[in-house]
Amino acid sequence: MNWGIILFICFSVGVCAYASQDVQVFDLMPYPADIEVQRGKFLLDDSFRISVTGNPHERGYRAATRMLRQLSARTGLFFTQDFIRPGQLEHAAAMQVHVVLPGKVALHQDESYTLTIRPKSVTLTADTDIGALRGFETLLQLLKVNSSGYYFPCVTIQDKPRFPWRGLLIDVCRHFMPSEVIKRNLDGMAAVKMNVLHLHLSEDQGFRIECKTYPKLHEMGSDGLYYTHAQIKEIIAYADDRGIRVVPEFDIPGHTTSWFAGYPDLASAPGPYEISRGWGIHEAVMDPTREQTYAFLDGFFNEMCALFPDEYMHIGGDEANYIHWKKNRTIRRFMEANDIRDFHELQAYFNRRVNQILSYYGKKMMGWDEILHPELPKSILIQSWRGKEAMIQCAKDSVYTILSNGYYIDLIHPADIHYLNDPSPADVKLTEEQRKFILGGETTMWAEFVTPETIDSRIWPRTAAIAERFWSPESVKDVHDMYSRLEAITLQLEELGLTHEKNRGMMLRRLICSREIHPLEVLVDVLEPVKGYQRGALREYTSYSPMTRMVDIARPDASVARKFRWNVKAFLEVNLEPGTAQMIEEQMSVWKENHSELTALIRQIPALDEIKPHAEHLFICAQIGLEALNKIRKGDPVKKKWKKNHLKTLKKMHDPHGQTELMIVSAIKQLVDGVPER
Amino acid sequence: MNWGIILFICFSVGVCAYASQDVQVFDLMPYPADIEVQRGKFLLDDSFRISVTGNPHERGYRAATRMLRQLSARTGLFFTQDFIRPGQLEHAAAMQVHVVLPGKVALHQDESYTLTIRPKSVTLTADTDIGALRGFETLLQLLKVNSSGYYFPCVTIQDKPRFPWRGLLIDVCRHFMPSEVIKRNLDGMAAVKMNVLHLHLSEDQGFRIECKTYPKLHEMGSDGLYYTHAQIKEIIAYADDRGIRVVPEFDIPGHTTSWFAGYPDLASAPGPYEISRGWGIHEAVMDPTREQTYAFLDGFFNEMCALFPDEYMHIGGDEANYIHWKKNRTIRRFMEANDIRDFHELQAYFNRRVNQILSYYGKKMMGWDEILHPELPKSILIQSWRGKEAMIQCAKDSVYTILSNGYYIDLIHPADIHYLNDPSPADVKLTEEQRKFILGGETTMWAEFVTPETIDSRIWPRTAAIAERFWSPESVKDVHDMYSRLEAITLQLEELGLTHEKNRGMMLRRLICSREIHPLEVLVDVLEPVKGYQRGALREYTSYSPMTRMVDIARPDASVARKFRWNVKAFLEVNLEPGTAQMIEEQMSVWKENHSELTALIRQIPALDEIKPHAEHLFICAQIGLEALNKIRKGDPVKKKWKKNHLKTLKKMHDPHGQTELMIVSAIKQLVDGVPER
Repeated sequence: MNWGIILFICFSVGVCAYASQDVQVFDLMPYPADIEVQRGKFLLDDSFRISVTGNPHERGYRAATRMLRQLSARTGLFFTQDFIRPGQLEHAAAMQVHVVLPGKVALHQDESYTLTIRPKSVTLTADTDIGALRGFETLLQLLKVNSSGYYFPCVTIQDKPRFPWRGLLIDVCRHFMPSEVIKRNLDGMAAVKMNVLHLHLSEDQGFRIECKTYPKLHEMGSDGLYYTHAQIKEIIAYADDRGIRVVPEFDIPGHTTSWFAGYPDLASAPGPYEISRGWGIHEAVMDPTREQTYAFLDGFFNEMCALFPDEYMHIGGDEANYIHWKKNRTIRRFMEANDIRDFHELQAYFNRRVNQILSYYGKKMMGWDEILHPELPKSILIQSWRGKEAMIQCAKDSVYTILSNGYYIDLIHPADIHYLNDPSPADVKLTEEQRKFILGGETTMWAEFVTPETIDSRIWPRTAAIAERFWSPESVKDVHDMYSRLEAITLQLEELGLTHEKNRGMMLRRLICSREIHPLEVLVDVLEPVKGYQRGALREYTSYSPMTRMVDIARPDASVARKFRWNVKAFLEVNLEPGTAQMIEEQMSVWKENHSELTALIRQIPALDEIKPHAEHLFICAQIGLEALNKIRKGDPVKKKWKKNHLKTLKKMHDPHGQTELMIVSAIKQLVDGVPER
Repeated sequence: MNWGIILFICFSVGVCAYASQDVQVFDLMPYPADIEVQRGKFLLDDSFRISVTGNPHERGYRAATRMLRQLSARTGLFFTQDFIRPGQLEHAAAMQVHVVLPGKVALHQDESYTLTIRPKSVTLTADTDIGALRGFETLLQLLKVNSSGYYFPCVTIQDKPRFPWRGLLIDVCRHFMPSEVIKRNLDGMAAVKMNVLHLHLSEDQGFRIECKTYPKLHEMGSDGLYYTHAQIKEIIAYADDRGIRVVPEFDIPGHTTSWFAGYPDLASAPGPYEISRGWGIHEAVMDPTREQTYAFLDGFFNEMCALFPDEYMHIGGDEANYIHWKKNRTIRRFMEANDIRDFHELQAYFNRRVNQILSYYGKKMMGWDEILHPELPKSILIQSWRGKEAMIQCAKDSVYTILSNGYYIDLIHPADIHYLNDPSPADVKLTEEQRKFILGGETTMWAEFVTPETIDSRIWPRTAAIAERFWSPESVKDVHDMYSRLEAITLQLEELGLTHEKNRGMMLRRLICSREIHPLEVLVDVLEPVKGYQRGALREYTSYSPMTRMVDIARPDASVARKFRWNVKAFLEVNLEPGTAQMIEEQMSVWKENHSELTALIRQIPALDEIKPHAEHLFICAQIGLEALNKIRKGDPVKKKWKKNHLKTLKKMHDPHGQTELMIVSAIKQLVDGVPER
C-alpha cells in the first residue's frame, strides 16, 4: 500500500477525509526544519504595516519593502505604508521584524530565522538580515485566501538550512544570457532560499565578460555578447541584496577556444582559432609549460579577483583534452625535464601554478572533480560531477566539496530524480566530522539547448525541488507531496518575471502564426524533450540553430503526462477506484477528440511535421487505452493475443520524434496489461 | 452600405469570394507607399542565404543577421549561414541586399527602400542601411506558410515614410522602467518602423538618470531607480542599431519635485522637498529669477548634452504651475524690475535662458506647446499636446513641430481613434510649404498606471496602428483593414520579448492562485479600463499602489468585445446574415454558460469582488441579447414596454466597476432596439 498514491488520489478527487477536516496544507518549499501549527489566522488588510528593528544591513529593509509590494500585488490591497526604512520604529505595526546583526553574503553565513504568526501579530526574528530574507520568503508562501479575505495561518516556524552551499550554475557561454535573465533567476533562487549563483563565464563557444587587461578576450571571443564590468557589478549587487553569492568560473585549461580567438599564443597548438559554433569536447587547451601562460593568467585573475567579491574562484578544469599536449613536442620535453609522468599530472602542475596566483589575490580555488590531485593543497573546493566518488574522497580527506552529479537539469530528467539524490547520502559510510566537508550542492544549467526564451522553463520549477533537497531535513522526501507543493510554487515563481509558464503560449503562437493553439497544447502537454545527451546525438545543432521548435516548447517533467501515469498506476493498484477511472477516461477522450483539429493544424504548418507521429500515436494510445479501461471496468477478459498485439503497437511509440518523447505510452501499456485474461 | 463591415463579415465567416479567389492579403503594418503584386512565391528553405553589398554601416549586417535568426525561429529551419559579415560577397545567395551609403541615425535620414521578391530571388536596395532595416521588417511581415512550406509572395515594394519623426514617448518617472523594458519596446518600434524614442526622464515622482555633476539628483530623487550613464549609452546604442533616435526630456521648470529633493535651492518656495508619491499637477517649480538656477542648468546640460547624441534636447515646459511664483515676493520684484508682465512671459524668459545654454552645447531646444512664445527663436521644435492649434501655428510660423494630441495611449482609447487622427489633416488650411514644418508625431505612454509588467499591453498593439499613421500614405485609413492586420502584427510583436499578450495569463494566475483562469478570461475579454483621466478620479492611487488588479489585466480596445459589437452592427445593418447571427449567438451563450463558474471564482477571491457587478451584468446581457436575437430571427414582435424595460436595465451596465467598463452593453442595446415592435 502506497500512502503517497492514496494521498494523491485524495487531492485529485477532493473527497479526502484528510482534506475535508480542514487540516492545514502548506505549500512551503523548501519545507522548514520545524513547523508547529496553531489554530487561527492572521487577517491581512490594508492597514498591515511592517517594522524592522535591530541592526540589519540595508538589504533587510529593501527586502521587507519588496515583500510588502508582493503582498499588495497578489491581494490588490492598497497598503498605506510606502517604504520600510531604518529608524521607522512602529510598535503598533502588525509585523515586527527583529534582526540582531548585519549579514554578510558569504559561505557559512547564519541564515536561520524564527517566524511566529498569531491572530494579531506576525513576528520574524533572525540573527542576520539574510536569515530574515529567508523568513520573508516563507511568509510569502504562507499567504492564503478564502471568501472572507487574505490571511496567514497561525504557525511557529524555526528554520535553518541543512547545507550552507545551495547553488545554481548558469552557463552563459553556449548561449549568452543577458543581465535580465540572470536577475529574474536570482529572484527565483531567493524565493526558494538558494544562495550561490555559479556563473560559467568562459567556454569554447564564448568569452562572456569584459576584460580590461586583455580586451581581445571579449572583443574577439564573444560576438559582442558579454557582461561589462558595470553589468557584473550590478548582478553582484542584485544577488547580494537577495543574500546570494556570485561565484565566477573561468574554465581552464580546456574549454578555452574563445580565449584563443584573441590570444592564440596561449594554446598548445598553433592558431588561428575562432569561436566554436558546435557542441562537444574540443581539443583546444592552454599550454601549461610556457611561463607566458601564467603571466597572462596572473594579469587576468588580478582583474577578475578584484571584480568578484566572493572568496572562491572556480577554474573549471573539466574535460581537458590531452590531444594537443600529446602532439606538442615542446610540452612533452617539458614533462620529461620536470619529471611529470602523465597529462593528469601536468594538469595538476598547471592547477598548482594557478592556485598560487589565486592565493596571491586572496582567493580559494574551486574546480570540477578532474582537478582533484594529492599534490593540491587542502584549501581547494571540489565540485563533484562525474559521480559521487570525488565528493566522498574529499570528505574523507578533509577537503571541502559540493555535489553536482545528479543535479544536471539540462539532461531533462523529472524533478523527483534530482529530489531523491542526496548530497550526503545516508548509505555512504562517512563520519559526522567527514560529512561536514560536504557543503551542499549545485544544480547545473548547461546552455547548449537553451536560449533566454527557454532557459527559465528548464530551470523552473524543477530547481525548487532541488533547493528543498539542499535546505530541508533529509527526511523531507515524499515525492507526491513535493510535486503537490511544486505546483503552487511554480505559479508563485511567475510573479518574479520568470517565463517558464508564460513563454509556452508565445512560442506556440509563433510556430503556428495564430492564437488557436489549443489542439497543439493538448499534444505538447504530454511531450518531453529527449533525456540525457540524446538531443545533440539525434540531430546536429550549432549555437545559431533555432531553439523555437516543439522540443523547445515541450517542458521537462510534463505534469499532465505525469498525473495521467500516476492516476493509471493508482487506478490499477488501489482497488480500481471509480473516480480515478473517470479522470483517466476523460483525459483519454480529450486526446481522442482533439485528433482531427490537431492533424489539420499539423498539415498546415511544416514546422510541425516532425512531431506528426506523436499526434498519431497519441490518438492510437487514447483508443487503445479507452478500450482497455472499458474492459477492466466491465471485467471483460481478453485473449493473450489481444494484449500482445496492442503491446507490440505501443512499443514503437516510445521512439523519439523531433527530439521529443510521448510520455504516456507506459501508462497505456499498463492499462493493457491490467485487462484480465481469459 | 459599409464595405468595411461587409469585408469584415467575409473575413469572419470565411466564405468570401474575395478570399476564396486566393487574392493576396498582406499583413503589412505600416502599409507600404507602393506595392505591386506578382504571381508566384519565393520558397524559403535551409539553403537561404543573405549577401549584403555596398557600403552600409555595421548595423546593416547586424540587422540582416537578426532577421535571419527571426526567420529561423519562426520556421524552425536550420540555416547554414551563421552571421552576415562585411566582405562576405556571395553572388549565389538568394537574398541580395545593396546599400549605397552608411546611414546616420538623425532627423531627415533617408529611410526609403525597394524590395523585390521573385520566385528565385529576394532583392533589397536602399540608399542607407537604415532604409534597408525598414525593408527587413517588411520582409519579415511578408513571411507566409502553407502546407508545402514557408514562402514570400512575389511583390515589388517601393516604400518611404510620410513623416520623418515617428516617435514613442515613454515616461520612466511615474513608474521606473528598467533597461530591458526599453530595449524590448525599441525592438517593437523597429518592427513598425518608428524612429524616435522620447525618454521622459525627470518628474515630480522621480529623477531617472545618473547625474555625475549633481549626484543628489539621482541619489535623492529616484529611490535608487535610475539609469546609469553606462545603461543610457547601452540604450542609445541599442536604438541606433535599430535606426532609432533617442530624445531625452528633462521637464523644467515645473514637474520638478524630485530635483528639489536633493537641491531645494532651485525651487521657488522653501523646502524641504520629497519625491512625490501621488499624481496630478504639482506646485513645485524652479525659480527662474536666480542666476544660480542657470548656473546649475548649465552644468547639468553640459553633462546631458554630451551623453545624448541627438541634436534635440526636450525641456518639457508643460503644466508649469505658477502658484509658487505668485507667492514669492522676490520673483514678483524681479518681474517688475525686468518688465515681465505675466508668468507666461516669465516662463518664456526662462526658456530663452535655457535655449542659450542648449545652443552653447550644440543642441536644438524642444518642448511642449506651452513653451511656444513669439520671443523664442525659430530653431525650437514644438510638441503639440493640448490640441492641434500650436502645431498649426508653428507650421504657419515656419517652426518645426510634431503632434501628440490624439496619440495619448495612456487614456485607453481604442486604436481607431488614434489611427484616424492625422498629424497633417487635410481639412486644415496650410500650404505645402507650411506642412513641411509638421515633422510627424509621437504617441505618449505616460506611466501613472503602468508598471514594467503592464506597460507593453498599453503600448502594443495600438502603437503599431499609430506607427502606420506616421509612415503610410494618408489614404491608408480603412479601420477594419487596419484591425485585421493589427491582429497578425500583435502576435509577431511577441517574438521580440514584448509581454502584451503573455503577461495576461500570468497576472490572472497570480490573482486567483490557480491555473484555472478560463472563466475569468471570458469576462476580462470584454472589459476595458476606464478611459481618459477617470481612473485616478475614481480611486486614489500612489506610485506604490498595486497595478495587478482586473483593471490592469483588462486591455485597451478589447478585441473580443469589439468583434462582437461589429458583428451585431453587421447583423442588424446587412440583411440579418445567418452566419453572423450564429456567431453572435455562440458568443452570448459562452457568456451565459460561463456564469456559474465565474461567480464561484469571484466568491472565493476577494480581489475580484470589485468586478462582481460586471459578471452579473454580462450574464444579464447574454440573456437579454439571446432573447432579442431569437425574436429578431423569428420576426417575433414585442411591446414597446419590453424594449423600454430592457433598455432601462441595460443603461446601468455602462457604469464602471473596479475602474473597468463592460464593453458589450451598447451592442446588446442595439439588439434590443432591433427587435420589431408590435
